[in-house]
Amino acid sequence: MTILSLNSYAAGKWVAPSGRISDLKSAVDGRVIARLGAELDFERMTDHARKVGGPALRELTFHQRAAMLKALAQYLNERRDALYELSYDTGATKTDSMIDIDGGIGTMFVYASKGRRELPDDVIYVDGNLEQLGKTGAFLGQHVATSLQGVAVHINAFNFPVWGMLEKLAPTLLAGVPAIVKPASATAWLAEAAFRMMIESGVLPDGAVQFVAGSTGDLLDRLGSQDVVSFTGSAATAGMLRSNENLLGNAVRFVAEQDSLNATILGPDAAPGTPEFDIFVREVHREMTAKAGQKCTAIRRVLVPAEHQEAVIEAISERLAKTVVGDPRAEATKMGALASLGQREDVLEKARLIGSEARLVFGSTDGSRPDGVDAEGAFVSPMLFSCDDPDRAENVHSVEAFGPVSTVMAYRDLDHATALANRGAGSLVASVFTHDPQVARKVVLASGAWHGRLYFANRDTGKEATGHGSPLPHLVHGGPGRAGGGEEMGGIRGVMHYMQRTAIQASPDLLTGITRSWVKGARTRTGDAHPFRMTFGELEIGDAIGTPWRDVTLADVEHFAEFTGDNFYAHMDEEAAKANPFFPGRVAHGYLILSFAAGLFVDPAPGPVLANYGLDNLRFMKPVSPGDRITVNLIVKEKTPRNAEYGEVRWVVAVTNQDGEQVAGYELLTMNAM
Amino acid sequence: MTILSLNSYAAGKWVAPSGRISDLKSAVDGRVIARLGAELDFERMTDHARKVGGPALRELTFHQRAAMLKALAQYLNERRDALYELSYDTGATKTDSMIDIDGGIGTMFVYASKGRRELPDDVIYVDGNLEQLGKTGAFLGQHVATSLQGVAVHINAFNFPVWGMLEKLAPTLLAGVPAIVKPASATAWLAEAAFRMMIESGVLPDGAVQFVAGSTGDLLDRLGSQDVVSFTGSAATAGMLRSNENLLGNAVRFVAEQDSLNATILGPDAAPGTPEFDIFVREVHREMTAKAGQKCTAIRRVLVPAEHQEAVIEAISERLAKTVVGDPRAEATKMGALASLGQREDVLEKARLIGSEARLVFGSTDGSRPDGVDAEGAFVSPMLFSCDDPDRAENVHSVEAFGPVSTVMAYRDLDHATALANRGAGSLVASVFTHDPQVARKVVLASGAWHGRLYFANRDTGKEATGHGSPLPHLVHGGPGRAGGGEEMGGIRGVMHYMQRTAIQASPDLLTGITRSWVKGARTRTGDAHPFRMTFGELEIGDAIGTPWRDVTLADVEHFAEFTGDNFYAHMDEEAAKANPFFPGRVAHGYLILSFAAGLFVDPAPGPVLANYGLDNLRFMKPVSPGDRITVNLIVKEKTPRNAEYGEVRWVVAVTNQDGEQVAGYELLTMNAM
Repeated sequence: MTILSLNSYAAGKWVAPSGRISDLKSAVDGRVIARLGAELDFERMTDHARKVGGPALRELTFHQRAAMLKALAQYLNERRDALYELSYDTGATKTDSMIDIDGGIGTMFVYASKGRRELPDDVIYVDGNLEQLGKTGAFLGQHVATSLQGVAVHINAFNFPVWGMLEKLAPTLLAGVPAIVKPASATAWLAEAAFRMMIESGVLPDGAVQFVAGSTGDLLDRLGSQDVVSFTGSAATAGMLRSNENLLGNAVRFVAEQDSLNATILGPDAAPGTPEFDIFVREVHREMTAKAGQKCTAIRRVLVPAEHQEAVIEAISERLAKTVVGDPRAEATKMGALASLGQREDVLEKARLIGSEARLVFGSTDGSRPDGVDAEGAFVSPMLFSCDDPDRAENVHSVEAFGPVSTVMAYRDLDHATALANRGAGSLVASVFTHDPQVARKVVLASGAWHGRLYFANRDTGKEATGHGSPLPHLVHGGPGRAGGGEEMGGIRGVMHYMQRTAIQASPDLLTGITRSWVKGARTRTGDAHPFRMTFGELEIGDAIGTPWRDVTLADVEHFAEFTGDNFYAHMDEEAAKANPFFPGRVAHGYLILSFAAGLFVDPAPGPVLANYGLDNLRFMKPVSPGDRITVNLIVKEKTPRNAEYGEVRWVVAVTNQDGEQVAGYELLTMNAM
Repeated sequence: MTILSLNSYAAGKWVAPSGRISDLKSAVDGRVIARLGAELDFERMTDHARKVGGPALRELTFHQRAAMLKALAQYLNERRDALYELSYDTGATKTDSMIDIDGGIGTMFVYASKGRRELPDDVIYVDGNLEQLGKTGAFLGQHVATSLQGVAVHINAFNFPVWGMLEKLAPTLLAGVPAIVKPASATAWLAEAAFRMMIESGVLPDGAVQFVAGSTGDLLDRLGSQDVVSFTGSAATAGMLRSNENLLGNAVRFVAEQDSLNATILGPDAAPGTPEFDIFVREVHREMTAKAGQKCTAIRRVLVPAEHQEAVIEAISERLAKTVVGDPRAEATKMGALASLGQREDVLEKARLIGSEARLVFGSTDGSRPDGVDAEGAFVSPMLFSCDDPDRAENVHSVEAFGPVSTVMAYRDLDHATALANRGAGSLVASVFTHDPQVARKVVLASGAWHGRLYFANRDTGKEATGHGSPLPHLVHGGPGRAGGGEEMGGIRGVMHYMQRTAIQASPDLLTGITRSWVKGARTRTGDAHPFRMTFGELEIGDAIGTPWRDVTLADVEHFAEFTGDNFYAHMDEEAAKANPFFPGRVAHGYLILSFAAGLFVDPAPGPVLANYGLDNLRFMKPVSPGDRITVNLIVKEKTPRNAEYGEVRWVVAVTNQDGEQVAGYELLTMNAM
């Protein structure tokens, strides 16, 4: 079999290995799979990203970048088989590879979809609400976010060569920021293959992505205030990188996702015999064996009510005993190999440290290999420990054996369980198996601050539950303290890591010009045509119409009450209405105002407005009394294209009475033909 | 005059100075004002914060903590005069003191108000939208934030001893996190006086705040993953603190706000004679002289169109010439002293560095004092420079002379102006004086990523504009790169710096139990009584009612059209409606559905529901055709007390047709009596 020569991709060109070359070996049988090593010009690469890739990406709107992600994901999706094939030698079974490969592609799809639905068709993101800074509203505050003008350096871990790359690339590219990807060497051939596909797809502009097959050299010394380092790996490596003087001196953003001693808690209510107990046992077993336990989110600490400790050990051991460990290509295999012999040594050493505080109840730490595997393969058996004094123990809470290794610990009550969970000193995730909402709330209050994610599963979540160990693009992935203090993903939050939030202070006109979202007080334009007769393309932000007046009579109110059945006393009974703290006497129904308003502004004949499909932020600000008159003002606030045929128009609507007081305000949504 | 002995406040007790004592001198005449020095037991202090202060604060809801902030602000507000008196010797004029003292108190008031309006009456903050993670909605994702369980260490700068303390304390306490405050020594007597008032107020629980009048010793070495350091000061000090091994090793949150070479841009449209030109000149002058230029946000770089460079220099110089520098107590004084002789030396030295690249056009750098001031006072004159080659110059973009020192630079076009602004390598703020929305948008796109705040002022913002140099509690304060990479305030964002965001994954029931906000799919409770007959206190999350059915007839649709005037063709013309991509033929008005829904659920007689005052997130999901029937379900989603008499109830409303399909959904807001 040919040995793969892993290329770097620098400043738009593939670069063959040079300098100190390393051999990368199969985790299954130890044969050399690939070679890598690179002497790259990092000044040129960062320059290329900043001067070519960044500007090209920033030219695109969020919607265009989202379309790019979707195209990339589709391209990769059609070529998954080639990636699976390369994945076996990382020690991964087909199921493991799906977590990595399908999981990575899925993450990209989710970001494509969120980019389209949750971000504007523009390059400026409007963050949070308008802040009125003066009495009249002549001066306003609004936070926005714009793309960082530097480069993102992604330093990825060996365990998920594809997912690890794509979960960082998706939010980065959506943010309009170019990336330099540095995969972990141990499994770099798989990352390189997926990266090569992305380049071959031709979807990305020049300079959007580069690839380092080898050492990062002086790359970090070249970063500045517009750059981001996003790191996944060990706390030791993170510590070294974090203390880089250049990064500290320039306050370079550093997102880290490092060690984590994740716990799972079997709820006090989840005794043997309950559905929760069974779900729990299945989940612990799955977390121990999937990817041979090489997941930063895997369950390391199994916290159970003291009275169920033995039952838990028995149930998990029973499942472990049935777990076939071996060649990941074999049909029967349920757990493959660790990623390398080095990892195997490390896991066994850490397991022995845990063994100094806990008794081994399943497997062995002596390094013996499961039956029938290659002697050069990085195989171990699963190892389950039981710790009798988790309060006094240290290693079980601090030593991460990055393999199929977990420790069962007994707790006295829920307070004890959460205190033990928090002994992880900051974790990516903890899971709780309970059917009791009070238990759930207590865990959030006691342990939320120590965890980036809390996963609750029970009989109700059964089939839909996504798994303790699965970070999802919708949710933040990261945790405080030992877990690195970083956050990745979390939907659009993850995009913001690659953008700068800026507080804008300006007049309504300038703010409207900046955000392309009309704000109160900004210029409007009233033409001859009713704006409902203008297509999506013709409408401009600030286009407005004022309607004629309409009287609201007592007869209207009584008729509306009779017609709709809404005989609320505030509309029908003068005395009772007066006694209400909000009303001067009988008042018109809110929905009557809304309906009359529509009657005033609707343009009846077929035209570009296809439907009024929703309404937001309606507030009734002043009562309308019989005898009052109302008029309506509509202003185009925002436009969002939805497809080739139509787009959404958001209108600001103000209903005003004869004294010029606004009685109701809302935002109306229409779908308008292009 | 007595010399003040500045006490620390540790573990609930005042501690007199001990160990190495320093004298603090008046900036005005050099006499000794106060003494400080402390040998504190930081293990005991951090323990006290974590074990006493934190738990006490976490017992309180956001609303209770907000009430506490309001009471503190009121207490301080009534004692402002005593603080003004102490402020003069920091070199501050009365106007300067108001920025510090009133500004700080105002910040606390804003946080009190935002805490009440924007946070729930609970201890868990719900962050962002629900994420449906499976097909049926049996498993959901929701981010929440809970209080960090550690301590916040606030390290404050000398220039705003009161504001600097309060702007950090307000969000910290609102987050439910105790603080240890370390003021800058140079002006610590004023910080200590304000701190003492807060203790005397009796508003805060024991352990909520502590005070270090002296060195922080080994405090930072005692911090862990639940702690936060919030630093304001020089980049040099920040760099030293950041590289603390313990902070790096435990991923301790470090919020820094450090040096900044803030720019202002006179817009290309803002020629002499325009209102913008005049506003600009006034603002530059004010920023140079307020607090004698000792503001991290002050304008250091004045970017103007080349053709107006001389006019700008002339106009600013004219104002500077009229600026009386002297004893801050004197009525005529417009600019006081720097905070200390040390600062004076530093400013003069930095000004000379700038002078090596730019010519001095106003003032002197030789250290001569303005007429009539005390020879021991830390006075300097304002210094204005003009730099002819800002592209090649380095110091003008990187040396922060922390006093009344600014440099005028000419730009060729707007691209040049923004490129020069970005040479600050990350700034807290830049201002732009323009009346052109296109100029504003261009600046945001080119320079947003380099700035924490962009301030646009012009003829429209005139009186309401809050000033280039004023950080506001509503808006983030901080900037990338040289400015430290941190963010403070920004409304509720600033509270989140002291909380942990956690992604929760759970069933609808558990999520409702955790957040106390009903989510779709969670249990409901339908009792005998209409929930509209229950008081705010009696209602529970999940209380529900289903209404009888109502037919929607063609006669209803035609009648509604006639009554309201809404004759949109989709309701009135079968053929035209069919041609619309969204409708099967004539359909009922959305507002008819809404009105009939109210008719179905409203309970007519006087009772606890006082008013329907609003409606959110209305979506029409399916058309209702004549002949369809509808029914309505209402469920209590959230309850928010507003005052002693009533509170807001948020209801989830679903309107369903005869086929069980939801045709409309929205959230209804009622005000309910207690």
